[in-house]
Amino acid sequence: MGFYEMDKNELVSMKKQWDDEYNTFKAKGLKLNMARGKPGPEQLELSMDMMDVLNSKSSLIGVNGDDYRNYGILEGIPEARDMFSKMIGVHDDEILVCGNASLNIMYDVVSTSFLKGVNGSTPWCKLEKVKFLCPVPGYDRHFAICENFGIEMINIPTDENGPDMDMVEKLVSSDDSIKGIWCVPQYSNPTGYIYSDETVKRFAALKPKAEDFRIFWDNAYCIHHLVDSPKLILNLMDECRKAGNEDMVYIFGSTSKVTFPGAGVAALGTSKNNIAFLKKVMGIRTIGYDKINQLRHVRYFGDYQGLLKHMDKHKTILAPKFEAVIDMLEKEIAPLGIGSWTKPQGGYFVSFDSLPGCAKRIVALCKEAGVTLTGAGATYPYGKDPEDKNIRIAPTYPSVEELKMAMEIFCLAVKIASAETVLD
Amino acid sequence: MGFYEMDKNELVSMKKQWDDEYNTFKAKGLKLNMARGKPGPEQLELSMDMMDVLNSKSSLIGVNGDDYRNYGILEGIPEARDMFSKMIGVHDDEILVCGNASLNIMYDVVSTSFLKGVNGSTPWCKLEKVKFLCPVPGYDRHFAICENFGIEMINIPTDENGPDMDMVEKLVSSDDSIKGIWCVPQYSNPTGYIYSDETVKRFAALKPKAEDFRIFWDNAYCIHHLVDSPKLILNLMDECRKAGNEDMVYIFGSTSKVTFPGAGVAALGTSKNNIAFLKKVMGIRTIGYDKINQLRHVRYFGDYQGLLKHMDKHKTILAPKFEAVIDMLEKEIAPLGIGSWTKPQGGYFVSFDSLPGCAKRIVALCKEAGVTLTGAGATYPYGKDPEDKNIRIAPTYPSVEELKMAMEIFCLAVKIASAETVLD
Repeated sequence: MGFYEMDKNELVSMKKQWDDEYNTFKAKGLKLNMARGKPGPEQLELSMDMMDVLNSKSSLIGVNGDDYRNYGILEGIPEARDMFSKMIGVHDDEILVCGNASLNIMYDVVSTSFLKGVNGSTPWCKLEKVKFLCPVPGYDRHFAICENFGIEMINIPTDENGPDMDMVEKLVSSDDSIKGIWCVPQYSNPTGYIYSDETVKRFAALKPKAEDFRIFWDNAYCIHHLVDSPKLILNLMDECRKAGNEDMVYIFGSTSKVTFPGAGVAALGTSKNNIAFLKKVMGIRTIGYDKINQLRHVRYFGDYQGLLKHMDKHKTILAPKFEAVIDMLEKEIAPLGIGSWTKPQGGYFVSFDSLPGCAKRIVALCKEAGVTLTGAGATYPYGKDPEDKNIRIAPTYPSVEELKMAMEIFCLAVKIASAETVLD
Repeated sequence: MGFYEMDKNELVSMKKQWDDEYNTFKAKGLKLNMARGKPGPEQLELSMDMMDVLNSKSSLIGVNGDDYRNYGILEGIPEARDMFSKMIGVHDDEILVCGNASLNIMYDVVSTSFLKGVNGSTPWCKLEKVKFLCPVPGYDRHFAICENFGIEMINIPTDENGPDMDMVEKLVSSDDSIKGIWCVPQYSNPTGYIYSDETVKRFAALKPKAEDFRIFWDNAYCIHHLVDSPKLILNLMDECRKAGNEDMVYIFGSTSKVTFPGAGVAALGTSKNNIAFLKKVMGIRTIGYDKINQLRHVRYFGDYQGLLKHMDKHKTILAPKFEAVIDMLEKEIAPLGIGSWTKPQGGYFVSFDSLPGCAKRIVALCKEAGVTLTGAGATYPYGKDPEDKNIRIAPTYPSVEELKMAMEIFCLAVKIASAETVLD
């Protein structure tokens, strides 16, 4: 029976029972973490063989005869540029292979835009106002970059096809202080949505008022599938090329969740014009990135196909975790009609929407019972979820068993918080 | 007989002979590179065993129980912080261990100062003018950072005790647009000078007019000795502490020239106040640096003493190379009185001063004969050596045999260029 059909006494009595169950969990003093999109220990084990790929007897001479142990090769080793250009979906002269984190590349690109402009435009720090469009719910670290630079963020609603493109087109074409938009197109963070072909085409065809407007296409999860025959998004760069819009896009990717977070390799795909400009500042900032780690990754995977094969192993570990989350929600929450959630085919998160006004309370109840979730509000710019209802669930780190327990607590928290609201 | 004592005809005839010798070399089509401070291949071999330190069976769990394969630990792993704090000469809570390049940290610190200020000061990008003091001759990549940010550079003469401290004190205490000074205190780049105790004390006791003035103490070569009992500089942080001036200094170091350039580990030593401020922006830029590579380094060296022992092997390789350079200069140039040079006890360079107005010509002559040197002028801000006389010689990369040949050509170039000037 749905929540709203119950009479008040019935709900009060059910709430009493949920409180009891909740307190029993609380007494156990559990410590379960579902806060961040962290790979679990079994996933880390998958890449341990990579540690054997290079040893003291290995040649670290590259395809071009360069010694990768020494300085140089700012744009990344050719072997890695080849592999990452395929992953990111750009030509092999449209890629920079960098250090250990795509977040760092994103920050550096924004920072460069502030200090030096974009391909010769006025440095953003000289402008009175810089705005970014932020499809919501979205990724808190993107929003944190904006906050750091004082960029004004504008919420863009999203659905299973991606951001509201009518709104994006209208804003981008009319306001030249809008300089960027953050997108996680294949398996959005946190919804898991896959942008539709039409959405990608409309992105590629944007006619921004600001010549220095850029799409920040964070394709972090483009190969992180949970199903066997995943839907793949259209290639943005190809579509941009058709529209003569190659300069409008930065595409980011990394192996952070493929091999080791923090010890992976990250890359940026973008037009040759953008690369030429960015390399000028990159060459001031560094003599080069870690080519040995780049080589370690390429030798381990062999090629892009090898990389994809490796991802199947992650899928085998992760699919049951997502299943456990969805199953529990279907069983415990669906009948009560007090929440909705996404059923992603890939990525690292499930997005849960509670009744309005309950998210903060749910997260707090979970925390009290030893289950740490991403803070409520984190999926919105400035940490402000206007309806206080969105919660990002990150099922990857705990074991399936821990996850089931954490989700039991989560579902109890949802029920209790919802009952509080309804009874209030 | 000295150059200036010769009569003109004698000099003309000698020049003819030098031209012939030079042309003989030129005909050989050599390709020798002394442009950058690059370790030679034998030096890279020294660290190949590090590639075996971590393998697929290794535990990557740290002293605190953290799994270094996963996200986190922004400030660097405790094992590495311990080792680098000793190298850099700060307390173990005054160190951040970062990625693969100290240049990157320097850039990021300057970039953060421009965008966010220094510990709450006005962001430098909001100021009309930002100036840095640049002891000359100095390091071109420091100057390139300044040029990139539009920082006005002021030359500060140096001698074997370091920068002209009268001038530094006077400028720093009177002009609040002076926000920084670049120093390479132990084995300056390119002179190899070691700052005297008095110089370090005067640095520590500076009373800058700008509260956001910082000393950029690039101690890149602090453990790169060429002699057995090297003179060591005073510890700047200790001296700053005595003066209550800990916030005034950033100290940089790395293993770029200890293990592998590009695949080493870099660190920043600075006050707890500065660290707290910098970490706020660092945490926006990245989730963490490559902890696996940090661990690889620490496990390889064991501890700071192990690191120092490793440096002895570099010394054995490098000392003969510096000797070859100095010997050739003593033999070929000293008797003619047409140049002077430093005799460093460590570091990566020999600084050569030709007769005024000859440096560009010498570098061009060398290049034509297949010997690439750092561009003349590179050791001065804006690439402008006011007397066109300083040349940075980088003896580390070529073999001793190649080096001898390169130095023969170099000495011929010095003689020819000097003769041209004198005969002009």
